[in-house]
Amino acid sequence: MAPQPHLIPSRSAKRAHYDKETIYPILDEALFCTISYVFDNKPFSIPTAFVRYENKLYIHGSVGSHFIWELEKGVPVCISVTLLDALVVAKSAFSHSVNYRSVVLFSNGVKIDEAKLKADVLEWLTNKIVPDSWDYLRPMKDNEVKKTTVIAFDIDEASAKVRTGMPNDEEEDKPLPIWSGIIPIETIRRDPQPDLLSQEIPLPKHLMPGKLIS
Amino acid sequence: MAPQPHLIPSRSAKRAHYDKETIYPILDEALFCTISYVFDNKPFSIPTAFVRYENKLYIHGSVGSHFIWELEKGVPVCISVTLLDALVVAKSAFSHSVNYRSVVLFSNGVKIDEAKLKADVLEWLTNKIVPDSWDYLRPMKDNEVKKTTVIAFDIDEASAKVRTGMPNDEEEDKPLPIWSGIIPIETIRRDPQPDLLSQEIPLPKHLMPGKLIS
Repeated sequence: MAPQPHLIPSRSAKRAHYDKETIYPILDEALFCTISYVFDNKPFSIPTAFVRYENKLYIHGSVGSHFIWELEKGVPVCISVTLLDALVVAKSAFSHSVNYRSVVLFSNGVKIDEAKLKADVLEWLTNKIVPDSWDYLRPMKDNEVKKTTVIAFDIDEASAKVRTGMPNDEEEDKPLPIWSGIIPIETIRRDPQPDLLSQEIPLPKHLMPGKLIS
Repeated sequence: MAPQPHLIPSRSAKRAHYDKETIYPILDEALFCTISYVFDNKPFSIPTAFVRYENKLYIHGSVGSHFIWELEKGVPVCISVTLLDALVVAKSAFSHSVNYRSVVLFSNGVKIDEAKLKADVLEWLTNKIVPDSWDYLRPMKDNEVKKTTVIAFDIDEASAKVRTGMPNDEEEDKPLPIWSGIIPIETIRRDPQPDLLSQEIPLPKHLMPGKLIS
C-alpha cells in the first residue's frame, strides 16, 4: 500500500519505512511517546508511557486529567517515538548526524470502557515497563481501574524513520586527518534501590539488574 | 509572575515549576526535543536536536525541509523535552510512577538570517552534542551555513514538571512483603567506534569515553 502523502518525509525519504516489521519493534522498545493534539488552534504535547498490542497503541491516565479528557473525545493526534542509537561524528559539523529509530503515527483516540480490556492494557503496560512484574504486585482493585482511563489508537497511518551506519562525509573531506565514526548511545537500568519499607524484602528475580531498556 | 493557565498541569500541579533555575538545566541536559505544530487543523510532531542560549531555544534544519518551512513562518509550536531518571516501582501497579524532568514550552519561531548568529548557533549545537568538538572539525563553509536554516524560540511560556524520590504507596499497602523502590535509568555513551577512514587517526581527547549524556 502506498503511504499517504503526509507520511512521506520531505528530507531523507529513503530512510522512511511503512511496514509493521519496522514500526512494531520500535514501538515495543520505547517506553515513552510524545502525544500532540490541537486545542484552541494551538499545539499541545505531553510525554506519556504506552504499550502496543496487535495493531493498537494504548495509553492510560487519570480520569481527572484534562489531557485525557481531550484525547478521549477522539481528536486527531500525532504520536512521536524516538530511540537514539548513536551520535554520528563526521569530519565536518555539517555532515554530523545521529543514528536513530523513530515512528510518527497519526490517529484518533477511542476510550476503552470494557473492564476486562482496561485491566489487560494496564497489565501489558506494567509488564512492558517492568517485565514480569504484574503477577508479583498487589492485585489491581476495581476502583483503581475505575479511576483510570485507557485510550486506544489504531496504528494505521504510521511511518518509521531509521538511520544506521557510519558518517557520510563529503568526498573532499575524506582524506582529512580528523577522527570520524560513531558514539553508540545506550539507555540502561542501574541496580534497583529499595525504599525504607523494603530494606528486608528480597529483590524479586524479575528486578535483578542487567536488563537493557530504552 | 503567575504562570499562564495553559501552563498549569491538571494533574500533580505540585510537581510543576516555572523558574529558569529549574527549566534551563533540563533544556541543557537533553539533546533532543519534540516540536509540535498545527497544519491543516491537525497536529504534527518531529523530534530534533536543539540548543539553549540565554533565553532562547534554537533548532536547525535543511532549507529544503517542509517542517522547517512551517516553523519559520512563526506558527505556534509546543516544544516538549523529557529526561527519564528512574522507574518508580511500588507495591501496587496503581502506585507505580516514574522519576522524570520534563519541560513544555509554547512559542513561535523566528528565522535567524544574520550569518554570524547562525554560525554561532551551529557551533553551540555541535558543542552541546559533542562537547569541545567544534574547533577540532573541518571549519564550516559559507555555503553550508546557507543550506541550513536556524530558528529561534523565546523561552517565555514554559513550565517544568519534575518527580523525584521513592514510591508513594497507599497506607494499607505499606505492610505488604512486596519489594518497592526505584530503578535508576541512565543514558550513557559507549566507546567511540572509528569508521574506515579513521582507523589510523588518534581519538581526540574530547571524544575519550566516560562522559554521561541524556
